Amino acid sequence: MTKTDETDPIRHRIMIMSGKGGVGKTTVAVNLALRLVESRKNTGLLDADITGPNIPKMLHIEDELPSADEEMLIPVYLPLGCDHGLSVMSMAFMIEKDAAVPWHGQLRTDFIRQFVEGIRWDWMDALDYLLIDLPPGTGDEPMSIAELMDVDGVIIVTTPQDVALLDTRKAINMARYLEIPVIGIIENMSGFVCPHCGCEIDLFGKGGGERVAKEMGVPFLGSVPLDPLVVRSGDSGIPFVLEINSATARSFEAIVDRMDEVMKGMKSKTPLS
Amino acid sequence: MTKTDETDPIRHRIMIMSGKGGVGKTTVAVNLALRLVESRKNTGLLDADITGPNIPKMLHIEDELPSADEEMLIPVYLPLGCDHGLSVMSMAFMIEKDAAVPWHGQLRTDFIRQFVEGIRWDWMDALDYLLIDLPPGTGDEPMSIAELMDVDGVIIVTTPQDVALLDTRKAINMARYLEIPVIGIIENMSGFVCPHCGCEIDLFGKGGGERVAKEMGVPFLGSVPLDPLVVRSGDSGIPFVLEINSATARSFEAIVDRMDEVMKGMKSKTPLS
Repeated sequence: MTKTDETDPIRHRIMIMSGKGGVGKTTVAVNLALRLVESRKNTGLLDADITGPNIPKMLHIEDELPSADEEMLIPVYLPLGCDHGLSVMSMAFMIEKDAAVPWHGQLRTDFIRQFVEGIRWDWMDALDYLLIDLPPGTGDEPMSIAELMDVDGVIIVTTPQDVALLDTRKAINMARYLEIPVIGIIENMSGFVCPHCGCEIDLFGKGGGERVAKEMGVPFLGSVPLDPLVVRSGDSGIPFVLEINSATARSFEAIVDRMDEVMKGMKSKTPLS
Repeated sequence: MTKTDETDPIRHRIMIMSGKGGVGKTTVAVNLALRLVESRKNTGLLDADITGPNIPKMLHIEDELPSADEEMLIPVYLPLGCDHGLSVMSMAFMIEKDAAVPWHGQLRTDFIRQFVEGIRWDWMDALDYLLIDLPPGTGDEPMSIAELMDVDGVIIVTTPQDVALLDTRKAINMARYLEIPVIGIIENMSGFVCPHCGCEIDLFGKGGGERVAKEMGVPFLGSVPLDPLVVRSGDSGIPFVLEINSATARSFEAIVDRMDEVMKGMKSKTPLS
C-alpha cells in the first residue's frame, strides 16, 4: 500500500518486526531512526510494544512525558542537533513502570488503537518517515497492530541462528497473509569479534538472514555486527549510531541506503490507476 | 497453589516464563527438563508457545508426531537412557511449519485451552514434574495460558542487562497479579569468556538477575554462562546438558538443587487446613 495522498502528514510508514523476541528489533529500530535523522529526514519513532516498551529507556527519555493538544498526544522530541531531532511516542509513557498490562483481547486492542490513532506526528512539520516498532513475534498483538496501520511495508529483524530463522519465515508469511510488502530483512548480532584478541567467535553464526531472504524471495538489507558497546549503549541511553564511529554504526548507513533503493523500486511497481 | 490431590497424575507443574523474548527461556526449559530426567524424575515438557514453538527443533524431534488415545494426545517420548526419557508435547506438532497462526483473541485462547487440556501426560506413568514453556513476555497470550493452568509456581528467566531486567520486574508483578508463587529467577547468558584467549568479555554483563531477585524479594536460582556451544547445540538438536560436561551443563545441576530446596520451603508454608 504505497501512499499517494499528498495531504498525509506522514510520507512513509515502516513497521519493524521480528519472528521472535531478543533479536535486537528495538535496537535496530532506534538506530535506523537515528540514521534517518542524521541524514536530515523528519523522523518519528512509535514504540507500539504494549508489553515491553523499552525505547524510552534506550533513548534515556524515560522520565519525559508527552504533552497534549486538543486530546491528541504530542510526541516527546529528542533534539539531536541545532535543527533536527527525533519525535518519539511510546506505550511506556502511558503505563506505570514495572507494571504488566493485565487486559485481554479486545480491551487490549482497543487501548492500542486509541493510542496509535491519537498521536499528532506533524506537531512541528510533516514526517518523512514514521518507524513503528511492533511487539516481537507473530502473535495476536503484533498482528492486530499491523492490521490497524496502513504502512508502506515491513522490515524484519533476525539473528543468524537456525531457531531464529525458523521464526523469521513465519514473520514473512504473516506479512504476506496481511498483504504488507516486505521491504527486507536485517541480520543483527551477525558475527562477533573478541575485543581482547580480535579472533572471530562463532556465537550466533553469520549469514543466516541473507540465506532466508534469498530462499523466501525478499530483499536483504544488510547485517549489523554484534558489539558489546551496543548492549551497553542501549542500557545507558546513549544511541550508538551518533556516539560511536564503529563498524556497527557504519552498518546502519549502508542499510538505510539499501532501504531507500528498495522503496523506490516498490513505488515504481505501483499500478498507474 | 501447592498440589495436595494424591490422585493427580502430575506431582509438580512449573511454568517457565520471561519478561521478554530472546533471553533463552526455551533453552533453559529444555535443559532443566533434561537435568530432571538425568536425576531420575519422570518429566514432561510442554511447549505452550503457539507463536514460536521451537522445542521440537531444539530436541531434534521436529518430524515426530504425537499419537492419540481416545481423543487424548500422547506426548512424543525422547528416550535418554535404558529406562528413562522425556515426554514432550509442542504446539509445533499441531501447526504447519513456517506458518503463523492467524487467529485472534478468544479463538486463539480456545485453541490453546483445548490443546493443553487434551494431553495424556501419564500415558506411561505419573509425572514427577511437568515443565511448561510459556510464550515469552507478559502479553495476553502467556497470561491466558498461565491462567488456564493450576501450577505450583513459576521460574522467570532473564539476561543480565538493564533492559531485560526492566521486563523481568513486569513478569514478577504479573505472577503476583495472577497469584502464582515465584519459585525463582535464573540469569541466562551470564558473563562470557572468549574461547580463543580466555578473557572475559562484557557482553550482556553479569549479576543483574540476582540484583533484581533481591530487590523484588524472590529467590535467585542461579546463573547459566553464555557459551557458543549452547547456541550450536540448540540449533543442531543436541541437548548440551547431556552431551557436554561444561560449566553450562554443571550450572543446571546447581539450579535444580536450589529449585528443590525452594519448593520444599514453599510446601512447608502451606496452611494445614
